Formats: sequence, structure tokens, C-alpha cells
Amino acid sequence: MSQGVAIGIDLGGTNLKVALVDSSGRIVARATQPMDATPNPPVVMDAMVSLSHQVMLDAQVDVSAVIGVGVGSPGPLSFSRGVIIRAVNLAGWENIPLRDQLGKLIGKPVVLDNDGNAAAYGEFWAGRCRDGHDLALLTLGTGVGGGIILGGQVLRGHFENAGEMGHTIVEPRGRACSCGKSGCLEQYASASSVTKRALEKVMAGESSALGVRVKRGDEVTAQTVARLARDGDALCQRVWDETCFYLAIACINIQHTFNPEKVYLGGGLACAGNQLMDGVREQFDSMSWTQHDDKPTIELASLGYDAGVIGAAGLAWQHYSDVNQ
Amino acid sequence: MSQGVAIGIDLGGTNLKVALVDSSGRIVARATQPMDATPNPPVVMDAMVSLSHQVMLDAQVDVSAVIGVGVGSPGPLSFSRGVIIRAVNLAGWENIPLRDQLGKLIGKPVVLDNDGNAAAYGEFWAGRCRDGHDLALLTLGTGVGGGIILGGQVLRGHFENAGEMGHTIVEPRGRACSCGKSGCLEQYASASSVTKRALEKVMAGESSALGVRVKRGDEVTAQTVARLARDGDALCQRVWDETCFYLAIACINIQHTFNPEKVYLGGGLACAGNQLMDGVREQFDSMSWTQHDDKPTIELASLGYDAGVIGAAGLAWQHYSDVNQ
Repeated sequence: MSQGVAIGIDLGGTNLKVALVDSSGRIVARATQPMDATPNPPVVMDAMVSLSHQVMLDAQVDVSAVIGVGVGSPGPLSFSRGVIIRAVNLAGWENIPLRDQLGKLIGKPVVLDNDGNAAAYGEFWAGRCRDGHDLALLTLGTGVGGGIILGGQVLRGHFENAGEMGHTIVEPRGRACSCGKSGCLEQYASASSVTKRALEKVMAGESSALGVRVKRGDEVTAQTVARLARDGDALCQRVWDETCFYLAIACINIQHTFNPEKVYLGGGLACAGNQLMDGVREQFDSMSWTQHDDKPTIELASLGYDAGVIGAAGLAWQHYSDVNQ
Repeated sequence: MSQGVAIGIDLGGTNLKVALVDSSGRIVARATQPMDATPNPPVVMDAMVSLSHQVMLDAQVDVSAVIGVGVGSPGPLSFSRGVIIRAVNLAGWENIPLRDQLGKLIGKPVVLDNDGNAAAYGEFWAGRCRDGHDLALLTLGTGVGGGIILGGQVLRGHFENAGEMGHTIVEPRGRACSCGKSGCLEQYASASSVTKRALEKVMAGESSALGVRVKRGDEVTAQTVARLARDGDALCQRVWDETCFYLAIACINIQHTFNPEKVYLGGGLACAGNQLMDGVREQFDSMSWTQHDDKPTIELASLGYDAGVIGAAGLAWQHYSDVNQ
């Protein structure tokens, strides 16, 4: 362990995840704890410290070997000030100076970034895209998060809120979004929206195998819709195709805006694997332009549920170590 | 002239423009020549050289004072190789190594970039945005061009074709675009598309003062539509509002992608001034999200028809002079 390790922390609405990550992006030890429904910032920060000590103990790593801590958090947040402005999934978290407060508690330098940025950096740093320096990541979960890597750096933007592709408009005058706008990608490509749109059609009386499951009281998720679509259920196929269609539009808009080498799709919906990738690629190819061959390749994100902690640790390596510069 | 000058060249489908530009972005001398309908690359390059000598003569500047040459050209092109791959408005221009060929003819180093990138760099370097380092420019002319400046640098992207926001999709399954796709911004926000959409409605029998002008044989342009909209013609108002609506969507998608400080609107349609800006800003504000105050300000591009030559010269200053580094 002479090379040291970084601590990566993924602060989610459901779980708090902590991992020790070496300089090659490999997880050495990990710990997870469920989040309270109404998480209290000081209590959560204490948990971050105790889980960090736990993973050091598990890996038999001395605190002196830790080069720094990276935290990926829901936004909006200020990277430069290290402050969570208002975490969308954490009730009451407003203007929390997490970077400095956690830094004092843990005695190591802390870097705080948006969870989408952290995951995108993880794909660049430790995922399949190691050789590519320009990529976008879309995480398709409860919402649609995202991150952009340009020249091997996280693109943060003037207002430090770049990479929020989930709130680009893909359908003018479309479905209402919780953000106040209409027609956001999130309303068509998040795992939740897949379930919601399918259930709306069932409730409206359309025939589908999904209706049987609803009546039985089964839990219905995006994976249920994906599975039924694969099995030939017409309603679910329509919802799935629509999802792939809007994701393809997002990929095209990414292509023509910052023209990256790769677009990665991750998050819960990406568990559908080839069913998602084939659908998106097919729609993307069918809509492509004829001017120039500048199409990014669209790929499954490779780090899965570890993207958050690995990416956050990667940011700590980037900021607090010469090893990785 | 001890500080030297750069030559800026704007290679357009209609005109070839050349200017001498000092290190502060001021035009010292200029010359323009109409382009042939079927422009021949060697002939055009000879014209670039002779217009360059003409502006040096006019400004009494010796060739030794010229630090370099910048050329803005229709794309797609390769910045790194200095090659025009296929210029959309220049018939037959394919794989022209303009940078090196012109460099030999003119005896100065040449930088070749997309005309949208050059104009965006001009706004950053010599326009109103001198203090801002992150901006997007949309040029609303025959088509919709664009450029992105991040940290004071042109964003070129992995395939060197970034900033083509005119071909982002703002209306799924929308109007067919010459690029092969449907629903591109260019089909709703170029000057040509404003005229075309208004005339289509007239041809379909809708009542409008525009119909009278068409019958009289008057020339109808986007400015005609703008003027009639201002005068209360319902059809023209509808087309104008729709134009502003789609431009607002483009601005929102730019906001949530790379989150710049400013979005500039330039090109022929921007001659409508406040009528355009008020319309776009109103729609943009009405569609804004509630998550975070990260809205770019939307402004009129400030360099007008000179954006191309000034921006191209600015790229030469950036690349071939220590003065501006």
C-alpha cells in the first residue's frame, strides 16, 4: 500500500456508499449504509467518517496512506466553494459546506462534485474509456443525471452546473417535469418514467400483460416493462421504443454540441443491457445526418453501481496526488 | 504598426472577405469580392492572396508586420489537418488542404477553422463578451451555424465538429432538414426557414399581408416576416413566435449541457434586434427550471457582418503571437 489509496463517497438518497480505491481505480474495501428518510447533515457526515474508518480497518490501511477524499453528491452544488446548494433527493439539505466540514472531521482534503460528474469521471478514469478523453455519461435512474468529460477533465461550466442533460428538452410541450419545465429527457428516459408511462397506458385501459401484474399487486419496475417488451407485449414495446427514441435524440444533440468520442449509458435502466443499447443505436443510426462522419459510439457504462464511489475517489486522486496527474 | 497585424479571411458562399486586424480586434483595412457560383479552389486562394496584398497596401502595412492568417470556412473541416473536408455552400470543395496551400502562397502561417467557431471566437476576443470565457454563438443566416468557447478556447470536440447546434433536434419528427434528419433547429431558426414557413402558410391559403406582397412579386425575406409580425399580421406573428420558441429551447439545452455564461445570437435574423431578443428571452424565461439559478444571459452578437474576419484574425493572433497568449 505504499502508493496510497483514496476514499470515494457516494451520497445517495437511498444509500451512503464508501470505498477505498487504489490509484488504478480498483476498489480495495467498501461499506454501505442506508440513508434515513430525513437525513441530518451532521449525522451523515459522522457516518461518512465512521464508514471511512471501517473500510480502512477492513483493508488494514493506515490513515496516513489516504491521499484524500472525493464525495459525489446530488446537486445543484458549487464545486469551487465545496457547498451543496440544494440536494434534490435529500430533504432539507441547503447550503451545506460539506467539503470543509467533512475535511475537518476526517483530517484529509476533500473534493466535492456532482454525482453525475463523479460517475462520468469514473468512466474516464477507471472504466472502458481509459483511452478516450472526451465523453458524456447519462445515468438513467430515478432521474436522469449526467456528466461531461472534455480533455480528461470534468466540464463544470460557468455556473458549475454543466452536464445536466436530463433536463434538456427533447419534446417541446411534452410531459411536465418536476423541475418546472416540460418535455425534459428525464420524463422519457429515467427508469421511473418508463414505469410511469407504461402504467398510465394501462390505467387508460390499454391492453397489456402489465395490467395483469398490476391487478395481482406485483411490483412493477422499468425492468418489468423491459422484460415484457422483450416478450412481445405491444404496449411495453411501444414505451420501450419511445424511450430509446428520446435517448437517441439526446445522443444526437450531444454529438452536434460538444462532439465527444463516446456516449455512455448507465444507471438502473442500463441493466437491460443490449435491449437498451440495440434500441438506442438503431434509432440513433436511423436519424443520423449525412454531412460528416462524426458520430460518437454509444456504449454501456462499465462501472455499474460502483461508478459513484470509483469516480469520487478518482477526483480525489486527480486533485490530491501527483501519481495521477 | 510595430505591434503587427493579422489577416482575417471569411470564406463564404456569397462573398470572400479579407481584413487586416490589429491586436485589439480593430479592423485596419478590408476588402471584399463576390464568389463565383462554382468557385475553383486555386482561383479562390489566389484571390485570398491578392485581397490580402490589397488591404496591406491600403493600410500601408509591410508584409513583415503580418503575424499570420486566419481563415473561417464552411465545414465540415479538420482543424488539426487544416483541410476543408466538404464545404456545404461551396460546390465541389472536397478535401482541400487550404491551410498548407494558402500558407505557401502567402508566406505566412495559416490557421483554418469552421466559420461558426471563428465568429464565436471573435465575440469572445473582440466583442462584448471580452470578460466572459464561456459562451455559445448561434448564427442565424441561410443555415444555423454555431460555435462554443470554453475557458477562452474554441471547443472543437473529438471529431473536430463541435458547436453544430443548428443540427440539434428541437422537434422530434419535425421538418425535414437538408442534413438528412428531421426537426433540426436550422429548420425553425434560420432566416431562410422563417421565410419558408411563412410562405408555406400563405400558399396553403391562410390570410396574411404577406400574400399581397407575394402576388405583387415583392421579394420576401425574414425581415419582411419580422416587419409584418411587428405590424400585427397574425400569420407572421405566429411564425415569429415559433422561431423564438425553438431558439429558447436551443438556449435551454445549451444551458443544461455546457452551462455557459452567455448565449449570443447573430447572423441575418439578428438584424431584427430587440424583436428577436425580447421574443427569445420571454420564451426562455417562461420555460426555465426551478432547480438552480444557472441561466446564461442571451444577447445579440456584437460584431455583425465583421464577426467572421475579426474572429479568423483573432485565431491567428491566438496561434501565432505571444502578444495575445
